[in-house]
Amino acid sequence: MTVADNSGMDPPRPLTLLVLSGDMEKGLAACNLALSALAGGRRVTFFFSFWGLNFIRRPGARAKGHLLAGCLGLMNRDNAERQKLGRFHLFGAGRWALLRLMGRYDLLPMREGLSTAHQMGARLLACSNTLQLMGLEKGDLIPEVDDVAGAMTFLDTAGEGIVVTLS
Amino acid sequence: MTVADNSGMDPPRPLTLLVLSGDMEKGLAACNLALSALAGGRRVTFFFSFWGLNFIRRPGARAKGHLLAGCLGLMNRDNAERQKLGRFHLFGAGRWALLRLMGRYDLLPMREGLSTAHQMGARLLACSNTLQLMGLEKGDLIPEVDDVAGAMTFLDTAGEGIVVTLS
Amino acid sequence: MTVADNSGMDPPRPLTLLVLSGDMEKGLAACNLALSALAGGRRVTFFFSFWGLNFIRRPGARAKGHLLAGCLGLMNRDNAERQKLGRFHLFGAGRWALLRLMGRYDLLPMREGLSTAHQMGARLLACSNTLQLMGLEKGDLIPEVDDVAGAMTFLDTAGEGIVVTLS
Repeated sequence: MTVADNSGMDPPRPLTLLVLSGDMEKGLAACNLALSALAGGRRVTFFFSFWGLNFIRRPGARAKGHLLAGCLGLMNRDNAERQKLGRFHLFGAGRWALLRLMGRYDLLPMREGLSTAHQMGARLLACSNTLQLMGLEKGDLIPEVDDVAGAMTFLDTAGEGIVVTLS
Repeated sequence: MTVADNSGMDPPRPLTLLVLSGDMEKGLAACNLALSALAGGRRVTFFFSFWGLNFIRRPGARAKGHLLAGCLGLMNRDNAERQKLGRFHLFGAGRWALLRLMGRYDLLPMREGLSTAHQMGARLLACSNTLQLMGLEKGDLIPEVDDVAGAMTFLDTAGEGIVVTLS
Repeated sequence: MTVADNSGMDPPRPLTLLVLSGDMEKGLAACNLALSALAGGRRVTFFFSFWGLNFIRRPGARAKGHLLAGCLGLMNRDNAERQKLGRFHLFGAGRWALLRLMGRYDLLPMREGLSTAHQMGARLLACSNTLQLMGLEKGDLIPEVDDVAGAMTFLDTAGEGIVVTLS
C-alpha cells in the first residue's frame, strides 16, 4: 500500500490548494504538494480561480459572449499545456530549461502532474465567477475538472484542513 | 435570514485574509472570498500589510516624516480607488476591460466590495509596521478600517480558522 | 519572561511559513510574522521552496551537476544577503530606500531576521526537490538551515497550525 497507515489515529488533515496565479512555477508547487499529500493519505482539493484557470483551460478554447472576454482571451494565451514562468521565463528558454531539469529528476510537468493527482483522487474545481468573466464553459476545461463551484464550496473544503494559496 | 442556519452545529470557522500584494486581481479575490464567507455566517478579518495597504489608502494621502517614505509614496501611487493589475494591466486597458466585465455580471469593484464586506461585519486591520514605514497614519486610510494592529493580532485571529494569503 | 503566559490554556497554534517567492518584501513579511509568533510562544517552521530558496543560499554558492542548473544559477543571482523587491526595485534604489527606512524603525533586514528567528527556536527547512533542481547541496545554504526536507514534512508540520504561503 502506498498511503500511510493511520489505523487508530485521526485521518490526516485534508489539503486545499487555492490557485490564483497562472505562473508555471506556482502550479508546479501546487502539484508537488498535492501528490505528496495524496501519497500520505490526505484528501486533496484544487480550486482554480482567476489566472489559475489557465492551468485547466484546454488549448484553443475560445471565449464566448462578451467581446471584452474575447480580447482578454487573445492576450491570456496560456493553457493547460503551456504556461509562462513568473521569473526567468526568457521568451520560453527558462521554461524549457526547467522542464529539462525536472525530467532528469523524474518530476512531472504540470499537465501530467494534474492528471496523476486526479487519478489518485484529487478533486479539481474551477471557480464559477472566473469562468463567467472569461466567457468560458466547463467544456472548455480539461476533462479532469470535476466541477464548477463558487467561493462557498472553497471555504467549506478549506475549513477542514490545510490551506495553501498560490497567488 | 441571509446567513446559513447552523443551529446545533459548530459555528463555521472564521476566515482571515492576509493581503500583502497590491495587485488588483488579488484584492478582488480577497473581497470575493470575504463576501461569500460573510454570507455563510463566518467571521471575516482582513489584515492589510506591505503593498496590500494600497487597497485601504485614501487617494491623495501623503507620507509624513522621513524623506524616503515620501519618495516611496511618489512611486507607489495606487490607492483604495484604483490599483494596477499584476498581469495584463496594459497601461490601464486591462483594468478597464476587467471592470466592465465585472459590472456586467454584478461583481463589485474593490472599493465597493470592501465597504460591503465591512457593512456585513468584516473587520479591516492595517499593519502597524507598514504604516510606520510608509509614513502614514490611520487618518490616511479609508474610514472602513477598524484598527491599526501588529502581527500578533493577525496570528491570534488566524489561529482560529481559515487563513488565505494574497501575496 | 518574553513569551506569553499560557498556563492552564492550550499552547498557541504553531506557524508554518511556506516561502515560494524570492521577492525581498515577501521574505521580510515572513520574518516579521515569525518573530512575532516566536515572541508569542508559538513554534515556527520555515519551509523554503523554489525561488524562496534564494533567501537561504550562501552568496557565491555554485550549482553542481547539470549544465542547465548552472545556467539557471547564473541568472538567479539573489542570495541570503541580497534580494530584489518584487515591486519598485528600481535597479536597487527601492531596496536601498526600504532598508534605510527599516533601519530607522529598528526592523531587521532579512538575513538578521532569519538568524534571530533561528536563535529564538524557529526551524528552517529547505525543499529537497528544489535543491536537486538547482544543483545545490546543504553546504551551499546558510548555517541556520536545520534540515533538507520534502513536501511530506511540510504537510505534517502545516497540519498542526497556521499556514502562511508567500508565493
